[in-house]
Amino acid sequence: MSVTSAASREADITTADGGVTAPAGFRSAGVHAGIKKAAGALDLAVIAADADASAAGIFTTNLAQAAPVIVSREHLQRSGGRARAIVVNSGCANACTGEAGLDDARRMASETASAIGCAAEQVLVSSTGVIGVNLPMSRVEKGIHAAVAELARGRGSETARAIMTTDPFPKEHAVTVRTARGAFVVGGTAKGSGMIEPNMATMLAFLTTDAVVPPQLLHRALVESARDTFNAITVDGECSTNDCVMALASGASGVQIDDAGYAGLLAGLRAVSEPLAIGIVRGGEGATKLVEITVLDAVDDDDARRVARTIANSPLVKTAVHGADPNWGRIIAAAGRSGGRFDVARASVRVGGVLLFERGRPHDEASDQAGRHLQGRDIRIEMDLGTGSRGRARIWTCDLSAEYVRINGEYRT
Amino acid sequence: MSVTSAASREADITTADGGVTAPAGFRSAGVHAGIKKAAGALDLAVIAADADASAAGIFTTNLAQAAPVIVSREHLQRSGGRARAIVVNSGCANACTGEAGLDDARRMASETASAIGCAAEQVLVSSTGVIGVNLPMSRVEKGIHAAVAELARGRGSETARAIMTTDPFPKEHAVTVRTARGAFVVGGTAKGSGMIEPNMATMLAFLTTDAVVPPQLLHRALVESARDTFNAITVDGECSTNDCVMALASGASGVQIDDAGYAGLLAGLRAVSEPLAIGIVRGGEGATKLVEITVLDAVDDDDARRVARTIANSPLVKTAVHGADPNWGRIIAAAGRSGGRFDVARASVRVGGVLLFERGRPHDEASDQAGRHLQGRDIRIEMDLGTGSRGRARIWTCDLSAEYVRINGEYRT
Repeated sequence: MSVTSAASREADITTADGGVTAPAGFRSAGVHAGIKKAAGALDLAVIAADADASAAGIFTTNLAQAAPVIVSREHLQRSGGRARAIVVNSGCANACTGEAGLDDARRMASETASAIGCAAEQVLVSSTGVIGVNLPMSRVEKGIHAAVAELARGRGSETARAIMTTDPFPKEHAVTVRTARGAFVVGGTAKGSGMIEPNMATMLAFLTTDAVVPPQLLHRALVESARDTFNAITVDGECSTNDCVMALASGASGVQIDDAGYAGLLAGLRAVSEPLAIGIVRGGEGATKLVEITVLDAVDDDDARRVARTIANSPLVKTAVHGADPNWGRIIAAAGRSGGRFDVARASVRVGGVLLFERGRPHDEASDQAGRHLQGRDIRIEMDLGTGSRGRARIWTCDLSAEYVRINGEYRT
Repeated sequence: MSVTSAASREADITTADGGVTAPAGFRSAGVHAGIKKAAGALDLAVIAADADASAAGIFTTNLAQAAPVIVSREHLQRSGGRARAIVVNSGCANACTGEAGLDDARRMASETASAIGCAAEQVLVSSTGVIGVNLPMSRVEKGIHAAVAELARGRGSETARAIMTTDPFPKEHAVTVRTARGAFVVGGTAKGSGMIEPNMATMLAFLTTDAVVPPQLLHRALVESARDTFNAITVDGECSTNDCVMALASGASGVQIDDAGYAGLLAGLRAVSEPLAIGIVRGGEGATKLVEITVLDAVDDDDARRVARTIANSPLVKTAVHGADPNWGRIIAAAGRSGGRFDVARASVRVGGVLLFERGRPHDEASDQAGRHLQGRDIRIEMDLGTGSRGRARIWTCDLSAEYVRINGEYRT
């Protein structure tokens, strides 16, 4: 694909085999607990560290936070950022489920803790699936014990499949980061927006590393890497009740990360997060095209992000991309209502590298060439705001198809 | 339709015949200038006051402001809010057209002024249609002279049709407002989002009254009435380069409006603006249903508006409405990411008056009843945030259909 990774240029990073169990010190499993209706479908996963790991999490900013989000936040706070395991189910989001839902999320943690042999607050909990339905707890509990019994290295792909709702494909990735202090590994898995069952509560990602990282530093790196990866994607501008990204650091590589080693850790987290995030967009509901939107020469990065996000979420831009229409007017109109500061007379728009609008003037003769680019699957839109400052941002989105409407409108819950 | 007008309860207001020429002191015309391709299609309108009128305008907040928006702002400022006419064309938005576009907009004003016999700054200009294309000025000029020659009362419906792009129906309305000081009339016309040709630059509305109103008071009333009418609608969350609402007050009724008479003027403007605004939503691209979203018991009106607007623009809510799916989880999830302050455990959601979620608990048994309401054409969604405060807002939107994607994606510009 045409999207190049900024991360890979910043450190000596090479792709490694596997996902969450690629780093030393982790085992995982994915089992069929019977939460999903389909016979034998994997729907419960446990990712466990062999010993206490540093842990960090970032969570949905939606006010309607699902029970597992509330419980995971609590546990991270009480444990001071130390964890032994993450337990995840798909098929039921345990969101908008009131006090009973909170009890269920707490029981998922305590059952996992007793099976592994740790304190309940050392287990993080995550759920994805339908909103407003309670978990079938006896099945969930049996599934947890089955998963813990099966924990092993090399089970990353089952784990990746067990967290899927109706994602079209599993998403996992791992890299080796070579630094002056030695090499460490970062692995991860993610799930995105479902494809058939509506009402999904949506994006989850779990990252692991065998670097030795204090919890605070892990949190800082997770937030910073998510800004340009998981927080730089949008399918339909919706922010779910269950979104979370969690990271565990086992320390098993013995490679110490402090302020001096921070850049390497950040580059490793980015190198795993970026393809996972792009995978979520590619597997977005109804998506037929991946669209990379780059905004340059903004007053600052925040302004650039505001403009890029508004273009990325514009239904008129997304339908134009779907129809392979090089409609620069919609891109400028979206940028203009974004709140980002710029002067149209100094702005330029490129589609697939083809200049369509330059400092206030259309280049309609280039329209056919841009149209041909838009017929592909990997679309690049670039807007230069021409402010003379160097703010920039990159966002990934997908096109808006009639299939999105069909998936979300024509099926009944 | 089930939406009741708040305005009609606040004053003695009755519907009157006609549109912009219903108030005394106005004439109008709509002609075929040849800007649109279709043979004989009306595409140029002039609304003229018999003598100097008070004038006010509110304009798009998009940074990419079309040439006619820039010129109309300038003219309102220079004239101190006095105008003789509004000239409008459809078929070409004169947006993103650089210096040449500004010259064209100025020429539209000066030609209209010379035909009528007033100063150029006493003419307001408005355009709607395709972005990025220059006006065919010789046709526009001929059209202006033809329209001015035909100015008459009772030509409101031609005027309403001449400002349409591909709106499915013309929109005009008028009311008589009876006050202790006497009766005056308010009339208006509006156009909304096109249905076939993409890239429309979109919402225009023109209001007239024969009340005697100083320009500052007219501006204040226009802003206040637009807040709950034209600014309370959304089709797809897009804000165009050409959006504007303009008002002229001829004073021909002799009814003086000052601070004491302000409420009557405001009620009259609202009573005309609300059905025009609702007409824009009903005629929205691909719309099959009108959706009224009411948010109650918010911390304040701004918070209520934020929540209502996020629900109204949520593609997941809009597709669920399209599919007649009583999906309260999507409504709560949209509210939760809106920035409005509330506690889900105190919030309630009603669809068609049917309680689906009450203070944190689902009422799934009511789902079928709400589903039947959603199969109609007039949909009501109500969310009570349960904060104990009295902030409220009402927003109108439409459903998101595959037809929207087809209109905006599958046609080429």
